[in-house]
Amino acid sequence: MIYSEFSAVIIGVFGLVITWLVYRMVCKQNGGDGVAREIAEAIHSGAMVFIRQEYAILFVFVLLLTFILSVFIDIYTALAFVVGAGCSGLAGFIGMHTATRANVRTAFAAKEKTAADALSVAFFGGSVMGMTIASIGLIGLGLLFYFYKHDPQTLFALNGFGMGASVVALFARVGGGIYTKSADVGADLVGKVEKGIPEDDPRNPGVIADNVGDNVGDVAGMGADIFESYCSSIIATIAIAATLTTLASDEIRQTLMMLPLTLSATGLVSSVLGIGLVRVFSDRAPAVALRIGVLSAVIIFVTLAWIVVNQLNLDVAYWYTLLVGALGSVIIGSVTDYYTEQTPVRRIAKAGQTGPATVIISGIAVGMQSVAVPVIALGGVIILATNLTGLYGVALAAVGMLATVGIIMAIDAYGPIADNAGGIAEMAGMGERTRAITDQLDQLGNTTAAVGKGFAIGAAALAALAVISAFVANVSIHTENFSLSLDQPLVLVGLFLGGMLPFLFSSMTMTAVGDAAGEMIVEIRRQFHEITGLMEGTAKPDYERCTAIATNAALKRMVIPGLLAITSPIVVGFSLGPEAVGGLLAGSLLAGMLLAITLSNAGAVWDNAKKYIEKGNLGGKFSDAHNAAVVGDTVGDPFKDTSGPALNILIKVLAMISLIIAPFL
Amino acid sequence: MIYSEFSAVIIGVFGLVITWLVYRMVCKQNGGDGVAREIAEAIHSGAMVFIRQEYAILFVFVLLLTFILSVFIDIYTALAFVVGAGCSGLAGFIGMHTATRANVRTAFAAKEKTAADALSVAFFGGSVMGMTIASIGLIGLGLLFYFYKHDPQTLFALNGFGMGASVVALFARVGGGIYTKSADVGADLVGKVEKGIPEDDPRNPGVIADNVGDNVGDVAGMGADIFESYCSSIIATIAIAATLTTLASDEIRQTLMMLPLTLSATGLVSSVLGIGLVRVFSDRAPAVALRIGVLSAVIIFVTLAWIVVNQLNLDVAYWYTLLVGALGSVIIGSVTDYYTEQTPVRRIAKAGQTGPATVIISGIAVGMQSVAVPVIALGGVIILATNLTGLYGVALAAVGMLATVGIIMAIDAYGPIADNAGGIAEMAGMGERTRAITDQLDQLGNTTAAVGKGFAIGAAALAALAVISAFVANVSIHTENFSLSLDQPLVLVGLFLGGMLPFLFSSMTMTAVGDAAGEMIVEIRRQFHEITGLMEGTAKPDYERCTAIATNAALKRMVIPGLLAITSPIVVGFSLGPEAVGGLLAGSLLAGMLLAITLSNAGAVWDNAKKYIEKGNLGGKFSDAHNAAVVGDTVGDPFKDTSGPALNILIKVLAMISLIIAPFL
Repeated sequence: MIYSEFSAVIIGVFGLVITWLVYRMVCKQNGGDGVAREIAEAIHSGAMVFIRQEYAILFVFVLLLTFILSVFIDIYTALAFVVGAGCSGLAGFIGMHTATRANVRTAFAAKEKTAADALSVAFFGGSVMGMTIASIGLIGLGLLFYFYKHDPQTLFALNGFGMGASVVALFARVGGGIYTKSADVGADLVGKVEKGIPEDDPRNPGVIADNVGDNVGDVAGMGADIFESYCSSIIATIAIAATLTTLASDEIRQTLMMLPLTLSATGLVSSVLGIGLVRVFSDRAPAVALRIGVLSAVIIFVTLAWIVVNQLNLDVAYWYTLLVGALGSVIIGSVTDYYTEQTPVRRIAKAGQTGPATVIISGIAVGMQSVAVPVIALGGVIILATNLTGLYGVALAAVGMLATVGIIMAIDAYGPIADNAGGIAEMAGMGERTRAITDQLDQLGNTTAAVGKGFAIGAAALAALAVISAFVANVSIHTENFSLSLDQPLVLVGLFLGGMLPFLFSSMTMTAVGDAAGEMIVEIRRQFHEITGLMEGTAKPDYERCTAIATNAALKRMVIPGLLAITSPIVVGFSLGPEAVGGLLAGSLLAGMLLAITLSNAGAVWDNAKKYIEKGNLGGKFSDAHNAAVVGDTVGDPFKDTSGPALNILIKVLAMISLIIAPFL
Repeated sequence: MIYSEFSAVIIGVFGLVITWLVYRMVCKQNGGDGVAREIAEAIHSGAMVFIRQEYAILFVFVLLLTFILSVFIDIYTALAFVVGAGCSGLAGFIGMHTATRANVRTAFAAKEKTAADALSVAFFGGSVMGMTIASIGLIGLGLLFYFYKHDPQTLFALNGFGMGASVVALFARVGGGIYTKSADVGADLVGKVEKGIPEDDPRNPGVIADNVGDNVGDVAGMGADIFESYCSSIIATIAIAATLTTLASDEIRQTLMMLPLTLSATGLVSSVLGIGLVRVFSDRAPAVALRIGVLSAVIIFVTLAWIVVNQLNLDVAYWYTLLVGALGSVIIGSVTDYYTEQTPVRRIAKAGQTGPATVIISGIAVGMQSVAVPVIALGGVIILATNLTGLYGVALAAVGMLATVGIIMAIDAYGPIADNAGGIAEMAGMGERTRAITDQLDQLGNTTAAVGKGFAIGAAALAALAVISAFVANVSIHTENFSLSLDQPLVLVGLFLGGMLPFLFSSMTMTAVGDAAGEMIVEIRRQFHEITGLMEGTAKPDYERCTAIATNAALKRMVIPGLLAITSPIVVGFSLGPEAVGGLLAGSLLAGMLLAITLSNAGAVWDNAKKYIEKGNLGGKFSDAHNAAVVGDTVGDPFKDTSGPALNILIKVLAMISLIIAPFL
């Protein structure tokens, strides 16, 4: 009984209760007053306007797809799809709602209390997102599994949940990514470069949109992405267990199908404990407190998983597989940390002395170099996991990597909250001391965000791989002699087409940011020009107009890349067949992962090189090196926050949709 | 008799005789006097110093590899390897020797005669490279085939020829690429940007090295690359024909093994006729004359190929396969032309008005977008070719694409000759009229060079695919149940490792250019600083010192990426097995092709956007848009002339080495 889907659901509900308590605790903190409160309200309502309009568009999409699924596949899949989309949307809403409450409270904790208190507020604000993802995922999947598990047809319909989560994540990632960077680039280019006013200056009409962007991109977008990885790795593990032909008994199959849910529930408990430990150690240095929390959660999870595997009478190989997955994520995270924090940053900064061109070249070279270790690590995970527990192992490793998502996502969402707190402190003039604390928190947030991005890419790659394995397993049942051999022309053609998609998709998202930023620039310039007294601080800018432009621009431009992602596997599948789809998935996973790592790390290293110079190195602010680094940072913005992260979800959407259409190919 | 390897050898010899006559004709032109002659001599001897030192290093490598091959494989392979390396080296030497004679003669033809005469000299200078490649390839392969064809073991040894050509091309491409761009960037950054003197100004100490670079990179490097594609597609076709199990008779097998040599010989004859037609029409506009030559050569080839296929009693499907290959190259070339000449150029130029960052982002977006059509075209070629004539068809399509290499390479090598002629005219002060003619020729050269790059990538991809097919065919004979299925973990791991290599390799070559350019900058600055009277034109700079630095920097930095390429398949093969190597080849081909197209086209579009502004658009020279475009152009230099082209040979070297070690895996 303890190892059934009920426990997963119960632990999910328990997680939600804890989340509610944490949310209440955050809200009870001082929400500020005066200007700070006004600004925070503006950010909050800007974020809510965006998410409401985004969900309105998504609603139409989801309705349409539900109809298509219920006609062409079955009602069960359609139902699961709606539940998956709803859960993802709900998690994103709760996370962002909390984040836009926690930001101003973090700023006030920094002003009125200590750095430790500010850390607590920001971290607990982020925890709500992390725990919500895990809890809602467990409840949604657990309930569906309970109803669907008895029949192969309905069991297959579970994939609909993954597809629902995929579609929401696709638009949240792409739309959020375009929003955040068009606002950021637009506000910076006019405010900092043309007008010479500091970042987060309240006179800049784009400053609220910029702060809203942090929330819709780095909180809601990232959250939907990770939610999708979390759920689809569980679903893929169940799907593979359902099709395994080599098992000794049906009992073992039932156990293996239950295992991912049980382990994920264990991971949620571990995350909650880890989050509690951060609170206990919050008087230490912020970086230390966060590290204690994460490491403890992982150690607790690994220990509990050992007990679970033994209690279920499973071979110890399953436990080792989990370990391999967890280790893989640590390696990928560490590489990201090295490439975006250490020697490479100083090298890029130094390249700034010979101008922007050398900054760009050396940054791209660093980004490209940084793919090596993650790829080798992923290769190691694949070999070890399959040697230990076969095809099932790849999916299980992904579950192991993602089980402690509660605390990992908390650390990730902490970044934009701290960033926002700094922005509010600056805009509301909350003083040097407050700003010093928020800066310290923000800087730590940059590191955790970079590591979080590495984790998101690794998790996406492994989750996609798991779904691809499920796709292969499924097609093999329906098609005799199904072979994905690379010497089959159709597989090869699919591979090429799949490899092309991430390039085309990145091109689209980069262009979208450029175009949307262009619209922002025009509006911000107009306000500086037409509103008298704006530069002197005697008149207020029209913030809403800027958030409205960013919102419309992002929503308009997310549709085409989104449609490309959704329709590609369908078109290829029904014109060239399942072999080509298999190639397509492998090609997109390969090119998507390589490109995502390159873009994310190049962007992060440019960002940090600029900050390194701003600290007074190599001539400091306004030196030639700094001007060159600013160019790199601007190029890096869409790389690391739009195109790179959007590739994670691209490869997963392609895989999920392929899995859904697999029986019909 | 007419369809035997003898005809191939005889036509090769005939080609060499024609080449010799053309060479004499070029040399008989006025070689100039005074300053121009001195400059030309300096470029010629700089190029020869580089190639001699490069060949000295290559000699050691070749010796070592010959020893390894004769010990671990057999003496036949070792012998073929030496012949292949020797042929490639010889072709590169002849081509570059002629190009550095033709440059000054083109300048003088422009000064003393007409644009038509200048075109003739430059084009015939380039023809020597094109015809040498085809002739030497036919003679070398034809003779080896005659001696090796009777025994499966010796027939397999033919692959050694391809490996020899690969290794030479690898170092020629990488070394030449690093040389040309370090000299270019170094000379430009100090001369144009810091000192404000024009391009090709004789006061710039780096100017000779810059002009040498055009020859070692765009003539010798490109030539070795294309030579390798030409030969390895012939070899792969022979190798596949030798292993086909579905043939009706051994006679047909003999015919199919002969077919690539026969067709390539036919292609050489067609090229010679096409080159003759360019001379006949040289009084037309340069672009028209070149187009007539190429189109005629292709039409003659296709017609002759029809006769050959019929005479050999082969199915017409073989002829259609050739047609598909030829058509593929036309599509890929046209796309390159569009992306680097039309609307995208104006869009990038316009992005320059909002600064360098937007130029970089939009250029990369254009580069990424430009992969779509070539990938679809390649997919079409694969599907059609295999449907027509099976696995053999992919290789045959590559042969069809490369048969008219004589004239295509002539047009390609024409570019750097015209570029050099312009440089010499500027340095020697040969007057406005001369400069106007050479500028006109140079501009045409930019277009032909971009199309040539597209052709080189397409040819490399198809040739590599042919070699990979041969690898699969070969391993399948030796290994039972050999499967390259994507659901095999080792295939997948190989795929990931293979996909990583182009990124790592590009990172290395970009960094090499940056470092080498840094050394050049230091030296050029030193000379401007220490040599009194240099800026006033009363003292001469020390050109030799700069060419020596570029030479040493390039040779030193080509070794590590070269070793990475050579050892990767060996390490993966003997540690993870043939499945992983198969994956490695597919992954490197996919990522290499995507990245090569992105880098080449982004580089070309930046270059042309800068030129578009320099023509007076958007504010013209020294406007903000121009400054931004210059940053793009500088970033694009290593993209399009070092890292991008080096990927062509990377994927072919990996494939060739894998084919050689295939029987031992």
